[in-house]
Amino acid sequence: MQETKLEKTNRGNYFEDFQLGQEIIHAVPRTITSGDVALYIGLTGSRFAVPSADTLAQSIGLRQAPIDDLLLFHLVFGRTVADISLNAIANLGYANCKFGVLAFPGDTISARSTVIGLKENSNGESGVVYVHSVGRNQRQEVVLDYVRWVMVRKRDKASPSVAAHVPSLPESVVVADFQLPAGLDFTRYDAALVGQPHLWDDYAVGEQIDHVDGMTLEESDHMTATRLYQNNAKVHFNQHSEGQGRFGRRLIYGGHIISLARALSFNGLAPAFKILAINGGRHLNPSFAGDTIYAWSEVIERIDLPERRDLGALRLKTRATKDHPCADFPGGNLQSGASIPAALVLELDYTVLVKR
Amino acid sequence: MQETKLEKTNRGNYFEDFQLGQEIIHAVPRTITSGDVALYIGLTGSRFAVPSADTLAQSIGLRQAPIDDLLLFHLVFGRTVADISLNAIANLGYANCKFGVLAFPGDTISARSTVIGLKENSNGESGVVYVHSVGRNQRQEVVLDYVRWVMVRKRDKASPSVAAHVPSLPESVVVADFQLPAGLDFTRYDAALVGQPHLWDDYAVGEQIDHVDGMTLEESDHMTATRLYQNNAKVHFNQHSEGQGRFGRRLIYGGHIISLARALSFNGLAPAFKILAINGGRHLNPSFAGDTIYAWSEVIERIDLPERRDLGALRLKTRATKDHPCADFPGGNLQSGASIPAALVLELDYTVLVKR
Amino acid sequence: MQETKLEKTNRGNYFEDFQLGQEIIHAVPRTITSGDVALYIGLTGSRFAVPSADTLAQSIGLRQAPIDDLLLFHLVFGRTVADISLNAIANLGYANCKFGVLAFPGDTISARSTVIGLKENSNGESGVVYVHSVGRNQRQEVVLDYVRWVMVRKRDKASPSVAAHVPSLPESVVVADFQLPAGLDFTRYDAALVGQPHLWDDYAVGEQIDHVDGMTLEESDHMTATRLYQNNAKVHFNQHSEGQGRFGRRLIYGGHIISLARALSFNGLAPAFKILAINGGRHLNPSFAGDTIYAWSEVIERIDLPERRDLGALRLKTRATKDHPCADFPGGNLQSGASIPAALVLELDYTVLVKR
Repeated sequence: MQETKLEKTNRGNYFEDFQLGQEIIHAVPRTITSGDVALYIGLTGSRFAVPSADTLAQSIGLRQAPIDDLLLFHLVFGRTVADISLNAIANLGYANCKFGVLAFPGDTISARSTVIGLKENSNGESGVVYVHSVGRNQRQEVVLDYVRWVMVRKRDKASPSVAAHVPSLPESVVVADFQLPAGLDFTRYDAALVGQPHLWDDYAVGEQIDHVDGMTLEESDHMTATRLYQNNAKVHFNQHSEGQGRFGRRLIYGGHIISLARALSFNGLAPAFKILAINGGRHLNPSFAGDTIYAWSEVIERIDLPERRDLGALRLKTRATKDHPCADFPGGNLQSGASIPAALVLELDYTVLVKR
Repeated sequence: MQETKLEKTNRGNYFEDFQLGQEIIHAVPRTITSGDVALYIGLTGSRFAVPSADTLAQSIGLRQAPIDDLLLFHLVFGRTVADISLNAIANLGYANCKFGVLAFPGDTISARSTVIGLKENSNGESGVVYVHSVGRNQRQEVVLDYVRWVMVRKRDKASPSVAAHVPSLPESVVVADFQLPAGLDFTRYDAALVGQPHLWDDYAVGEQIDHVDGMTLEESDHMTATRLYQNNAKVHFNQHSEGQGRFGRRLIYGGHIISLARALSFNGLAPAFKILAINGGRHLNPSFAGDTIYAWSEVIERIDLPERRDLGALRLKTRATKDHPCADFPGGNLQSGASIPAALVLELDYTVLVKR
Repeated sequence: MQETKLEKTNRGNYFEDFQLGQEIIHAVPRTITSGDVALYIGLTGSRFAVPSADTLAQSIGLRQAPIDDLLLFHLVFGRTVADISLNAIANLGYANCKFGVLAFPGDTISARSTVIGLKENSNGESGVVYVHSVGRNQRQEVVLDYVRWVMVRKRDKASPSVAAHVPSLPESVVVADFQLPAGLDFTRYDAALVGQPHLWDDYAVGEQIDHVDGMTLEESDHMTATRLYQNNAKVHFNQHSEGQGRFGRRLIYGGHIISLARALSFNGLAPAFKILAINGGRHLNPSFAGDTIYAWSEVIERIDLPERRDLGALRLKTRATKDHPCADFPGGNLQSGASIPAALVLELDYTVLVKR
């Protein structure tokens, strides 16, 4: 028996616990399986054809259906929560998120993060932590690489403040960082099976696409999704404590909203079969069970890919709303600094791959 | 950049968009996995032994546990919704539904439909579309073949009416169309593991079986099931719009009720290990979250199978109710044209395979 | 057609139906798949690293990630319900529960039980049935072996009473009955991936660990979990009948509470990677949808394992509460016979394996 007991309960890191340059090995690697794939479809209704069918994936040169990009994102993100954001007040943003090699059922992913920025808030009660996180498969190949920043509580208002360091981040992922899946070959591409006939050239810069459909959020659905990712942020699960908190309710993991917006975007963006990069993302308002999520997208940029005449990239901005159909494209001309409409919950700036 | 932008949003087909003889290739093939199987059990509670256990499936001559017949049905049906029934007012009926070769985890299914009938309603606002849909696996073997008819809105009341064509449909699937799984061998059949000792000869025509148990519907459950099938009919998912609609609530996919009725029917029909055919089906009233589903079955016909002394077929009529236990066998003597009791939600006429 | 129809509906066994020494083969074997694993994580949020990742399992000498011990427990238990506890008033206790060989995806489990005790209650309306249940894989290797006792209704108060026979049960599973997974080798153990640095020696007898987090129960979640296990006890699923019953609500399967308590216990017990035995368990109060489950654990005993200097066992008592955070360690000094606090829902006495 020990003289001094080690504290066993992990209460999460506070702002003071992070140091610039700190490297964090996140616990609990995860083998992704066809079970995760089925549950992801069941919880989001995603119909993108490549992750749905081995035959279709094989028809474009892949060995089998890959894991949906956002399922992979959430599984990597989920690893980082216990170390980074257990005491987070808010998940402020994402940047420079690059998808690496594809993941397939049977792959095991793990994650590490480096603290690349720290900035205490002027109220002395919290600060912003910037982390660079990298997800790898069992062969140590990078599957995902991104930066996020979160507002984290200080343990003690009186603790000395640290020198502010805010990393410089690219406004968008550069073309040279796009990692195209190996082996892609579109000679057997079948638009009828993909779901829409449009090719890269059919999408125009400035074009606005209403994804029309709506999906109502349920407590079970968002909690099951978030548990599936082993994301254990307290605010999503505990009505007993959240009932006495800021909103009186469980807050829905922002990533679940991203997934719903992407799933809804199939209607209009079915050919956007692969996410190459997330340039940035903001959760503009919280979502709760009972809200109905709608989405629309705008084409921001058409990007030529070097040495690929069969493929192009589109930079998109997808907005999601709650209880507000998107025929009027809400938030489309939102100025920086303007007040954010209450119905607007997400603005996601990302880049997708489309056949030319 | 394009001069004329192609509309990207799919608003679904209206009655005017269908033409007799039209062939439709449905998008988004789907690889069925053990993940789908687990979620199907989780959402329905099905206990039929053959799809539950490789060992049991092998003991009757199959290579491994096949996909549950109704899971397969919903996955094929789900492919067709975006093209056929996005603007449907009601799913009116099914006929001549024949199960083909078994599906196993790893198989990829896709679907095509042919418009075989059209009949405009006298109010000029909608019409009935009859489609013949065929699901195939990656070897192009037929896994499912059926007719359904739906009432679809017209885009424009003023559009010219088409000549009515109503296909003639068999009252039930004929014996010659039954496709028995290859390799079935009952010399090692273990009734104790199947769940009930009854054989084909133990079921009598006219026999009524109360399945006793009830299952309460939850929004999360029916939405997750319907999303799993990638069935994107709007009425199941969007409380924001349905709240202002016909029922004020999300309508539950009728196929989920069929699955619950089948799962409940294990208690009394455990030996009915395989559905050969669905002769017809009617959703008599809508179901909503909070309703508790009960079911009972009646043996309609005992069918000898040519050259099989080890197997027989039973034609059954299973009725499902909401909030009404079935000890009184509700709807059993319902006359054609009689008013339908509010508690009755389903009448399914189908044929199952049972060991003799 | 038959002269006398055999009753097809199984109404479950009543106290009179059980006989001392009776052997019961439970129906519906089940192949466990990665789909079950994904759904189990999605429903419980479990983060124990060994069942989560093939790589981590392989790093300690296993061939791949094994099935979570409690998922296995529920799947074996689920087989037994239709025969043992369909008419149970209460699940009174568990004892001498020993985990056998590990289960892996693809294994098919089945279960048999022997009636080892019977004791009629003095009111003549019910009695206690003791069963010894054994779960086996497709090679007939034992995966689980346990005793449970349930209070079961009598069919008829007037039926003659049986001689009481109460089996003697060990207070805890003895060391000689612990079955360690074959091949365990801790030379490559990585505590950073397991989630906490503590080793067996860091846990002290009498130590109390607050697992801090809370998980709110939803109807969909507990029903989906219980259906996944093919546990068909009526009280969990039927609001129409339970609304008129004892509690006015669906009762949550006690095993789901055990799984949540175990999942929550990761925070403090992450290194407890394997359950060797359940010495006893009591459901002290019922749980319902809307309740938030918390848990804490106490180290009861440190157990040396013969010929293993790399591994030790810890006997733990984990308590779960509803709507009551566990910083005050509720129920810790509960005397036998004392009134049970309303917030206390579970007391589980079990033994886990930890690296030394």
